[in-house]
Amino acid sequence: MISKKMQAMLSKGSAIRAMFEEGKRLSALYGAENVYDFSLGNPNTPTPEKVKEAIIEVLEGDSVSIHGYMLNAGYPEVRQAVAENINKRYGANLSYENVVMTVGAAGGLNVTLKVLLDEGDEVIIIAPYFGEYLRYIDNFGGKAVIVPPNPPTFLPNITAFENAITSRTKAVIINTPNNPTGVVYDDETLKAMAEVLERKEKEYGNAIYLISDEPYREIIFEDAVHCYIPHYYKNTIVGYSYSKSLSLPGERIGYLIIPSCLDSFADFIKASGDATRTLGFVNAPSLMQKVVALCLDEKTNVDFYAKNRHDIYTALTKMGYQCTKPQGAFYIWCKALEDDDKAFCERAKQFNILVVPGTSFGCKGWFRLAYCVSNQTIQNSLPAFQKLIDSYKN
Amino acid sequence: MISKKMQAMLSKGSAIRAMFEEGKRLSALYGAENVYDFSLGNPNTPTPEKVKEAIIEVLEGDSVSIHGYMLNAGYPEVRQAVAENINKRYGANLSYENVVMTVGAAGGLNVTLKVLLDEGDEVIIIAPYFGEYLRYIDNFGGKAVIVPPNPPTFLPNITAFENAITSRTKAVIINTPNNPTGVVYDDETLKAMAEVLERKEKEYGNAIYLISDEPYREIIFEDAVHCYIPHYYKNTIVGYSYSKSLSLPGERIGYLIIPSCLDSFADFIKASGDATRTLGFVNAPSLMQKVVALCLDEKTNVDFYAKNRHDIYTALTKMGYQCTKPQGAFYIWCKALEDDDKAFCERAKQFNILVVPGTSFGCKGWFRLAYCVSNQTIQNSLPAFQKLIDSYKN
Repeated sequence: MISKKMQAMLSKGSAIRAMFEEGKRLSALYGAENVYDFSLGNPNTPTPEKVKEAIIEVLEGDSVSIHGYMLNAGYPEVRQAVAENINKRYGANLSYENVVMTVGAAGGLNVTLKVLLDEGDEVIIIAPYFGEYLRYIDNFGGKAVIVPPNPPTFLPNITAFENAITSRTKAVIINTPNNPTGVVYDDETLKAMAEVLERKEKEYGNAIYLISDEPYREIIFEDAVHCYIPHYYKNTIVGYSYSKSLSLPGERIGYLIIPSCLDSFADFIKASGDATRTLGFVNAPSLMQKVVALCLDEKTNVDFYAKNRHDIYTALTKMGYQCTKPQGAFYIWCKALEDDDKAFCERAKQFNILVVPGTSFGCKGWFRLAYCVSNQTIQNSLPAFQKLIDSYKN
Repeated sequence: MISKKMQAMLSKGSAIRAMFEEGKRLSALYGAENVYDFSLGNPNTPTPEKVKEAIIEVLEGDSVSIHGYMLNAGYPEVRQAVAENINKRYGANLSYENVVMTVGAAGGLNVTLKVLLDEGDEVIIIAPYFGEYLRYIDNFGGKAVIVPPNPPTFLPNITAFENAITSRTKAVIINTPNNPTGVVYDDETLKAMAEVLERKEKEYGNAIYLISDEPYREIIFEDAVHCYIPHYYKNTIVGYSYSKSLSLPGERIGYLIIPSCLDSFADFIKASGDATRTLGFVNAPSLMQKVVALCLDEKTNVDFYAKNRHDIYTALTKMGYQCTKPQGAFYIWCKALEDDDKAFCERAKQFNILVVPGTSFGCKGWFRLAYCVSNQTIQNSLPAFQKLIDSYKN
């Protein structure tokens, strides 16, 4: 008696969340220390101490203004603080009017797609992609158009990207640093994508919006650089979340950057406030808005992720796994040991290893490992990974 | 270049939010003390002190578990605490499995409608209704079917309600205590509605879900009683928010009650977690989940609202306004002084009074006044209300 649409969705489900729930089940059976759950991007490094201090500082204020409604787009002073921080870091020229506080990046993406999509409009995503994009696009009657995976770099193939654009293309979603691959889009790639988009906008006489989903922006390694995408392409909307940078995924706090040069900027801004309200978010959580405004220069413990990345990458490649060396985020993307990545992940489970099949990201034959766990979990898991690869040699 | 659908929506907008923004503009011009903003349901009574204590108590825990992801439906221990509180208060028989924590009641309603609606399914709402219901229903391709207003009680006319039900009716949304009227549905009304629904379910061989939107549950006056709707009708889903009861509207924290006896219960539960995730909420804000679990027996300052209600109702009726005496919530529902309620509200603005036209609630010729403001605002506003009514006598 639930909707037919939801019934069909449920039969697919979220492989990532299913793994997360399976991990809880296995932990209860075998003890948490004996289950190697690399399924979910749930940061295991503490929030910076400053977050706690900021919460307590904000609580000193008047409760009605801390916990009350504000404009759907968020507190103007919080949005201004975010804008100035982006200006300082990236040489942008934003004010509060260019920032909409959102219920995490997922909330921001849903708002953006609600603003943009009419039934049948096309949204391009690049495989491997965060599987939820398919659902976000479907929420608003959009049609996902998938650019195939491009191993071994997993940067988008520019020709394939260009071929995916049609007169119905309304938006492109990119995600850098990338979930699931850890790849960071470089200057050359972004210039090439921007050139294609500008040319196609002219060809079709339509705006094509580039939605840059950037929850991993600050988690970046060695000499990789995060580029500020609106510098490359005018019709860019940036979606951000503090989930990873401040280890606050449960708090659902993030923002959209909507540059003034965007086509239909005034309508977009008005519509994004409207969509925030009518989708049921209403506004980003109020206390946390004020808290992140006090923590804009706080950094997560990137060294924690860097050590995990080094340890897992070194160990797995030494064992014989074929992995993409991540430049950012906290995922490692590896080739499954058989063509059927789902069967591979099922077999991994027999060794109490939980990883997510590449099929969930539109890329068969690979798997994703989220290394945002404790380093101890990584160390504990290594003998199991060895047994897993050995099991394919017999 | 935004979607055609959003362009059309923007041209309608939210009268309530437009008033809220107008209030901010007028306050800047004339000073906040000279603007009588009764437009928005933004509680002006402080959060109970216990909320602040609970936040600080929760912060003593491990930051990863306070601010991390949990199951999409929320922390099991929080859901269990909510369930036990409802059991204690209403003699229900719930466990954590019957509770899904949501991003406020608005988030919960969107999740529920996402779970239930296929394109073209009908949802009955009873005028005057909270205007956002139209948008929530439209978000999922549903069709709102409106039961006309029934003055002077503004309880639903049962015959009109029955006539609105068709073979496509998937759900009915009720809201008690009611926004905008302040009416509380009594035992007799609920029994009559349940009888109709049961009969129609049999007639059409379909489940018809009753969605009870209850953010004002605890704000109730004199001898009015809030009835626990699942006791009346088996296919009831309750949507709740702590926005009003703990003065936390900006925090976006609430829950759904999904009783085990619901038709397709197992699918409903699974789908509600899925919808919570894919609509971009992901989960209700994590810190606030833990906080409300420590504040289940806290009460808002109902005396504050009772005094406001008394003062505004007495003064306005004495002046000659025709008002429905509210039994709950913090709204008073009055007849506009001309047929065109929008014109009336425009005229009220000339006296710095901000109220919302009944048309926004599907009920022409009336207006809503939110008396969740400071008592001083009410006192200050009375001469302006006198001038407003006098202006119609000239």
